[in-house]
Order: sequence, then structure tokens, then C-alpha cells
Amino acid sequence: MFKTVEWKDGAVRLIDQTRLPKEVLYVDCRDVETVAQGIKELWVRGAPAIGITAAYGIALAAQKIKAISFDNFYQELMPSCDLLAGSRPTAVNLFWAIDRMKQTAITHRELSIPSLKQTLLREADRILSEDIAMNRAIGKFGAALILPDSGILTHCNAGALATGGYGTALGVIRSAWEENKQIRVYADETRPVLQGARLTVWELVQEKIPVTLITDSMAGFFMKQGKIQYCVVGSDRIAANGDIANKIGTYSVAILAREHRIPFYVAAPMSTIDFKMPSGEEIPIEERHASEVTHIRGKEITAPEATIANPAFDVTPASYITAIITDKGVFKPEEIKDLDPGSSDHPGK
Amino acid sequence: MFKTVEWKDGAVRLIDQTRLPKEVLYVDCRDVETVAQGIKELWVRGAPAIGITAAYGIALAAQKIKAISFDNFYQELMPSCDLLAGSRPTAVNLFWAIDRMKQTAITHRELSIPSLKQTLLREADRILSEDIAMNRAIGKFGAALILPDSGILTHCNAGALATGGYGTALGVIRSAWEENKQIRVYADETRPVLQGARLTVWELVQEKIPVTLITDSMAGFFMKQGKIQYCVVGSDRIAANGDIANKIGTYSVAILAREHRIPFYVAAPMSTIDFKMPSGEEIPIEERHASEVTHIRGKEITAPEATIANPAFDVTPASYITAIITDKGVFKPEEIKDLDPGSSDHPGK
Repeated sequence: MFKTVEWKDGAVRLIDQTRLPKEVLYVDCRDVETVAQGIKELWVRGAPAIGITAAYGIALAAQKIKAISFDNFYQELMPSCDLLAGSRPTAVNLFWAIDRMKQTAITHRELSIPSLKQTLLREADRILSEDIAMNRAIGKFGAALILPDSGILTHCNAGALATGGYGTALGVIRSAWEENKQIRVYADETRPVLQGARLTVWELVQEKIPVTLITDSMAGFFMKQGKIQYCVVGSDRIAANGDIANKIGTYSVAILAREHRIPFYVAAPMSTIDFKMPSGEEIPIEERHASEVTHIRGKEITAPEATIANPAFDVTPASYITAIITDKGVFKPEEIKDLDPGSSDHPGK
Repeated sequence: MFKTVEWKDGAVRLIDQTRLPKEVLYVDCRDVETVAQGIKELWVRGAPAIGITAAYGIALAAQKIKAISFDNFYQELMPSCDLLAGSRPTAVNLFWAIDRMKQTAITHRELSIPSLKQTLLREADRILSEDIAMNRAIGKFGAALILPDSGILTHCNAGALATGGYGTALGVIRSAWEENKQIRVYADETRPVLQGARLTVWELVQEKIPVTLITDSMAGFFMKQGKIQYCVVGSDRIAANGDIANKIGTYSVAILAREHRIPFYVAAPMSTIDFKMPSGEEIPIEERHASEVTHIRGKEITAPEATIANPAFDVTPASYITAIITDKGVFKPEEIKDLDPGSSDHPGK
């Protein structure tokens, strides 16, 4: 099994996902700038994988700091944290992982600097292994919702390649498959960056899970034909009201699902929930470079004079979401706000 | 202005639309087999343009027949008609144009063979010039529905390149622009064959009509943002109950439009209506080659082991269609059946 992100011989090793499925190329990032570049240029993508990568990026930066007092050490670590925080604007896991690494440093401020460096690295390892465990929990909770002999549509790649391993939406699919549910997957190709065609299909082919590749424009057609019984997607950020941000096109899939009375599930770890974000309307939507639309695998597909739009994400309102499958269980979108550990459970308060 | 199809020096001249927008390459088809190949391989596409091309293909085949009696002439013409009829299964204009050419031959059976050949060529010319006139009528009727300062989404290419000239959906857009309505067009790229990115954008750029290229997956996003006030698409076949077949993805756009309370218009000449087809459920949907999905402009985008689906069209039920804009006026889909010249207007009959 491939590794999406790992610590290897003093470097952060990533699969360059922009090369898949043609080539399985590992890149060893030996400084935090290369890690940030990898996030920005989509060598690694998917909210949980970005979080893990950023954590390792901070651990990597930490190893190189020469300061001998904690205050100087922490001060020298900040620019690396800021650099990573600026690499992708929409994924809340990125900020969550950076905060956790900062908090770990502060909590262990009494340690010697060499021990602190080791602690930060162990914390990144823990974020990775927790992520895989969470994905397995998501998979188990999600698989319980899937009836045998079903067609499942997924959009983009919320797979092992988007996480520490196993996947969120594809974790649900993997679990259902491991439980012998005889599922068939429909993978939207997911323009502009084709994560469905390149990554989801590749992952599922490796596991011999039956997968049919379709263009994004075909989803409605196959729903109408009765081939699709469930939609399962990942998420980059979940607002307190149950709205979710995910890859551009998710919102359209959700509308099509409701029109065909197909359950629409969002699979994501609890760390994807941004309790400070009251609704999806406030989630910043990253606008990416026009060339992702005008060129496919280096080939220009349109007249150079065209105006281009390239929002990387959209927001699917809670009202279109059947349930959110987390590592802590399956929740209705309106139940999300009650999960906030920082808020009181007493409605009277 | 480019010519989509024309009779030139004894040949059927087509723009090879698969080369656009990179290259404006005209191909002179000197036998009916090349014409059929051009239809099959999408050098020419779009229901009206296919009909016109087939008519010229029959005229071309007629010129080469050596028979001296009408019966022999007609018999020798039939294989060419059958070859063309088999080139694309969904476009009703193809069968309509072939029938009209056959009928023209039969009507003029008393003519000398050289005169008959001339008559068939003039009939193809007439189909072309009628088509352009119909498009201008569609444009005028359609533009009356468009308020100034509107965003208009179109899917695929129902433009001059899909017709004899001017276009159906793009005819509405051209007319609205000529009437100074300050419209902005959103063009879906239209995977798999990218007619939106390659052809619609190119056509509109030539006329300096503002156009923004988006991926198919972005349509819902821009509707929700309030950027789109109308959807206008073409059609390859309209059933008697007002269901329409059009490029794959049209059905999804129609659902998204209704969800956002955006009018969804279908622009097509009367010849697109197949009164013998009671509903869209019976329209045959062409399944095209997997390579259109797995490869984009020659570049492979997925793992070679993937299963592929590639339906070229989908059917949008009448219930999603605000109105059908024809050369005879604007009709509600449920009014289509009353337009059948072969049926009585008297419901008591």
C-alpha cells in the first residue's frame, strides 16, 4: 500500500499526486518551503492529508532551528507556521494541525530543545496515526448505512491519497467492500484538476473495487437511470450549522441527489468541523489559477482570449445533506453545533 | 465569418471542428464516405449542421451516379442515404434531411438525370439557407425573453458551428447582443468532447460577446451566486411530449436551473421535433468511444484499468423546461404536440 505522507530519513516524503496515475513519484521535502510548495501545487491535497503534511512540515522546520531557549525556538518556528497556513485557504485541518503543533510546543516548553524537537516529530506521527484510525472509524460508521448491491457516486478524491491512509468517503467505500457488500462505485472525473479520474479511479483499481469513471456532467444521467443509490463525498470544512465546503461540483451533486431522492452523505473527521464558523456562507473559497481550466495535462483546450473562473470549492448547504459521517458517529447536519466541546450542552444556559 | 458547411468546387467543405480553436482547417469531402466519416468523427456536429451536411452528402453522391433511368438512379442513391443515416443515431435532423432529399428526388422523378442532380444540389442549398433563416427567427423570438444585463449559461455548442450559421442557443445570445442587451455568457466546457471550451468560447470571442468559461461542475456554484439569469441550450431531438435530448449534462443543468428558479430555455428549429416519438424515454442515446473520456486532446487522464461510461446525450423531461424557442415562436413543452402538421387540431377527432 502506498503512503500519502510520511517522515522518512529526516525528510517529509510525499507522493507527487499531480503525476498520478501515470507515475508513482515520491518527493522528499527537506525544508519547509518545499513542503509549502507541495501543498500549494497539489503534490498533496485533501484536507486531512494537508493537515498531516503541515504538521510534518512544522516538525521538519523545528529540527533545523539552532536556538537554545524556548522563546527563541518558538519565535523561529512561527514563520514556518505562517508559511504553511498561507498555502491553501479553505482546508480547516491545515489550521487545526498547525495550532496543535504550536500548542504541543507550548505545552512542552520546559523540555530541552532536542527533546522538544523529538516531541514535535512524535506529535506529527500521532496526527498521522490518529487520522488513519479516524478514517477506519468513519468507514465503519458509514458502511453501516450502505445496503448491499448498491451504486455509490463519489466526487473528487476523499481517499487514502487525501488523508493519512484509508480515506474518508473512500473509507466508507472500502469498509463496505470489506464487508462484502458488492458495491459499484461511480467516480466523477472532477474537473478541473481531475482528482476523480486520476486519483479515485487509481486507488479503487488497486483494491479491485469496481469503479466506473464518468464526466461530472453525467452524474444526473446515471442517477435517473437508477444506477446510483448513495452519494458519499469528503469535506474540507464543516461549519457549525452543518453547511460543508468541498471540491467545486459537490453542491451540484447534492442538488442532483436530492432531486432523485438519493441520500447524500459527507464523510469527514471531527477535526474538519470549524465550530467558530457559524455557516458555510463565511467559508473563504480559494480561487485557483486559470490554467487549471484552460489546460488539461499541458494541452490548451480553449481560445486564449476567454475569461476564466476557477473557484476550487463550493459550499453545500446543510439542507441538502442527509448526514455527516464522522469518527464519532453519524450526525444530522443540524446536530453538528451540539458537538462543540467548547459550548455548553445545556440549552438553558 | 466562417462557414460551417458549404458546397465548394464540387465538394462538401467542412471545418474540422475537432481542431478548433487551435486551427481553422477546412476539409473538402469528395465522396459520401468522407462526409459520413466527418459526421461520425465530429468534424461537424450539432443536429442542424449534421442535417445540412447529410443533405450535401446525398447531393454529392448523386453527382457521381452514372445511371440513366430514375429507378436505377434512385436505387444507387439509397446506400449513400443509409450510410449517412447510420453515422449518428440521436440527431433527428439527420433523418429529416435525408428524407427530404429522398422526397425531392421522388417529386422530380420526371426530370432528366442531369437536371435531377442539379435539383438535389439546389435542395441542399435550400436546407442550408432555410436553416440560417430559421436560426435568425429563433434568435429574434428568444432575445425577446432576455432582460438586459443578464448572465446566460449555455451548455455544449448550439452555435453557428452547430448549424448552417448564426446558431440556435447562440442565435438567441447573438440576437440579444445585437439588441444591445449587455449580456454576459457563461459557457460550460462540456466534457467529454469540450464543445463549450473549444467551440462556444471561440465563436463568442470572434464576436466580442463577453464569455466566461467554466467547468461543468461550476454551473450550480454560479447559479447560487446570482450570476446566471437564464439557461439556453440547443437540442438534438424533441419528443412530442416536449421532452428533449441534448448533449450529456443538459439534464443536470436543467435540474440546477429549476432549483435556483432560473428559466431553462431550449432553442431549436421545428425540424428538431420528432412528432412520432411520444416521449423522450424512447430516444436512442448514442454511447460513444471510451477514449473520449479517458483521453483529453490525446493525453490519458486515468488509470487504463478503469471502466468507462460515455453516453453522448441525455434526456431532459418537459417538466424542467420553461419554454422551447423555435423558428415559429416560443412554446411551452406541453404545446409541442399541437404543432404536428400531421395531426388534427380538433381534439374531438
